[in-house]
Amino acid sequence: MREAVEQVAREAREASRALATASGATRDAALLAVADGLVAATERLVAANADDLARAQADGMSTSLQDRLRLDAGRIAAIADAVRDVVALPDPVGQVVRGSTLPNGLRVHQVRRPLGVVGMVYEARPNVTVDAAALCLKSGNAVVLRGGSAARSSNEAIIEVLQDALAATGLPRDAVRTIDAHGRAGVRALLRARGLVDVVIPRGGADLIRTVVETATVPTVETGTGNCHVYVDTAADLDEALAVCVNAKVQRPSTCNAAETVLVHAAVAERFVPRLLRAMHEAGVRLHGDETVQGLAGEVPVEAATEEDWATEYLALELAVGVVPDLGSALDHIRRFSSGHTEAICTRDTRAADRFVAEVDAAGVAVNASTRFTDGGQLGLGAEIGISTQKLHARGPMGLPDLTTTTWVMTGDGHLRS
Amino acid sequence: MREAVEQVAREAREASRALATASGATRDAALLAVADGLVAATERLVAANADDLARAQADGMSTSLQDRLRLDAGRIAAIADAVRDVVALPDPVGQVVRGSTLPNGLRVHQVRRPLGVVGMVYEARPNVTVDAAALCLKSGNAVVLRGGSAARSSNEAIIEVLQDALAATGLPRDAVRTIDAHGRAGVRALLRARGLVDVVIPRGGADLIRTVVETATVPTVETGTGNCHVYVDTAADLDEALAVCVNAKVQRPSTCNAAETVLVHAAVAERFVPRLLRAMHEAGVRLHGDETVQGLAGEVPVEAATEEDWATEYLALELAVGVVPDLGSALDHIRRFSSGHTEAICTRDTRAADRFVAEVDAAGVAVNASTRFTDGGQLGLGAEIGISTQKLHARGPMGLPDLTTTTWVMTGDGHLRS
Repeated sequence: MREAVEQVAREAREASRALATASGATRDAALLAVADGLVAATERLVAANADDLARAQADGMSTSLQDRLRLDAGRIAAIADAVRDVVALPDPVGQVVRGSTLPNGLRVHQVRRPLGVVGMVYEARPNVTVDAAALCLKSGNAVVLRGGSAARSSNEAIIEVLQDALAATGLPRDAVRTIDAHGRAGVRALLRARGLVDVVIPRGGADLIRTVVETATVPTVETGTGNCHVYVDTAADLDEALAVCVNAKVQRPSTCNAAETVLVHAAVAERFVPRLLRAMHEAGVRLHGDETVQGLAGEVPVEAATEEDWATEYLALELAVGVVPDLGSALDHIRRFSSGHTEAICTRDTRAADRFVAEVDAAGVAVNASTRFTDGGQLGLGAEIGISTQKLHARGPMGLPDLTTTTWVMTGDGHLRS
Repeated sequence: MREAVEQVAREAREASRALATASGATRDAALLAVADGLVAATERLVAANADDLARAQADGMSTSLQDRLRLDAGRIAAIADAVRDVVALPDPVGQVVRGSTLPNGLRVHQVRRPLGVVGMVYEARPNVTVDAAALCLKSGNAVVLRGGSAARSSNEAIIEVLQDALAATGLPRDAVRTIDAHGRAGVRALLRARGLVDVVIPRGGADLIRTVVETATVPTVETGTGNCHVYVDTAADLDEALAVCVNAKVQRPSTCNAAETVLVHAAVAERFVPRLLRAMHEAGVRLHGDETVQGLAGEVPVEAATEEDWATEYLALELAVGVVPDLGSALDHIRRFSSGHTEAICTRDTRAADRFVAEVDAAGVAVNASTRFTDGGQLGLGAEIGISTQKLHARGPMGLPDLTTTTWVMTGDGHLRS
């Protein structure tokens, strides 16, 4: 098992050398072949996906998860278009980060290089298989994929398309590999394949992250845990704040940048909380509130919020609402429960906004804007391989440059250090 | 024990909040007070250092290590001057990395922030205590220090000076703490103080790095392991190459960017190897060579190089020398034994140079220049807290910006995602 996964990683490592020295044009050609190949293989992919869907149905998977798992011609075309979008992004490999000629005449420049082998551990959606592979190949990396078991047949078919496209472009098939056959023990082996894998990016829930932290001896980048808050200040424009809260919770509740808790300043609680609860209730949101919030709920059903509610990333139409005596208390609450993803304040008071921005420790801080903007596409970075909630290497949406490392190239004429 | 270390980290974390929101002027004032305080405390520091030296002598520490441990008035003045140099560096906190106004009018900018609490684990030299603390404070971080036990009395006295300077500037004393009292178990506790420590930077040998990799659940940056090679190509200017090899080995052999192996192309071996061996021997370098090298040694004593020699970072006047049939074989050797620090080629052939730069996977690649240039001061980055040999976050010399993370600040006017 461990040997099998290490062998996969070793073969991917060997392939990564060809990727690292391939021209950007070759890597782009491979990706265009991937896009065309996916569309051409539509029938085969839909058939493989049907196997997964049948198994999912038999296993009693929820219809919303089944929907995320489903592939059809339209979705496959969209996935192929996303690959073409990645092709259009600037090549990060070879970008010069900085450089100069030193006083002694030594010419130095720091240049972007591929990381080598990227491990991706993710869940059921088969489109992630393509997205992740495309971003890794564009940035000159080989990739070892570990998708959700529910999507195994779909992923197998997709990976065949990816490998065929690589081969057709003269690049090694091993630049895209999977360890789906090796189950959870395979993930553990991947996380300990030191010297073979340069980074593992887990994309999933808190459980996966915990496993990674406890197990990994290879470098990792934690992504996608978002217990995001919106704080409505005493100086908020309450109409605007209401719209921000609803957008942050409802617009796409299954994403990591959706809001999970709204905190309201006590001075505006009586005016704001009843409106907030009504609007959320009408949008189908299940509500949890502290005592003050429950007292302001009127007809709207509000359960008592527990410690666990404050700590939970619902990823669903569910929200915790609390009233705080002041901004400092809101910051304390956020400091305690934030996962460091995105925190928002609604206020017209510049001092309150500045203090919130200065004291919140997160990848994103939004002032009078929805938490939903912490997103590579929204921020103009192009496609993202995940949203990092760690502080080192990359924080927030991770784009192509975050899939590279750097090398200092020092060019001299027999230069010696004195 | 674990509780004691966690309590230290927790208090440093609390202090880090004051650091993170303190102005750059306040942090600089604290550092100038540190510099003045060190000089004013010269007598006390030398006395504390004398205790360490007496213990070191009794323990039979080598004279070269005793020399690294020694503090005198001149060295204390130099350490204080280094702190003043750090003050003069640009403040990384608040630097805007990038930013724009999005088409929807949302203003976004990514800004540098302190990491929070930095853990430093290092060895005997007491100047590192000051250097590390100064770089952490300049970048708005609190720091938990773990120095070598040999320097314990010196470090205790130094940390008192640091804390007094903080207090005199209105900053919390807890922004600089030590866990020296807790021995090796304390290092382990620090490496697992998840949520309390934002990064641990180990500065030491391969053993320390191994402990860190196996133990850490907090993020780490590995630094300072350098098994560096110089490859002398068939197209090298041999006089220049000789000077580069000698400089890389001899100029300061105890540093991580010193060369440990020289590889010579077979076509120039007969002309180059005897000169190399003689020059190294005259410089006092103990030599290990493969069979070809031994056959070219003449009068110069050359031991047989073992697998271990190729893998060893001597950090001393000791060198392994090998002959390779071609550039590809040199690259294979380097791929196998490199620690990813710095690799050098001597050649006048642009194709050979380009291939070497493209295929070597290291923090630094030198063409016709000494490996010794991979250094923050040399590269114009100012002081460095270490030289990272990992690929994520920072690679090569780590300066002040590498002690920060970033936050995306998104400022709107009730902006919603559609």
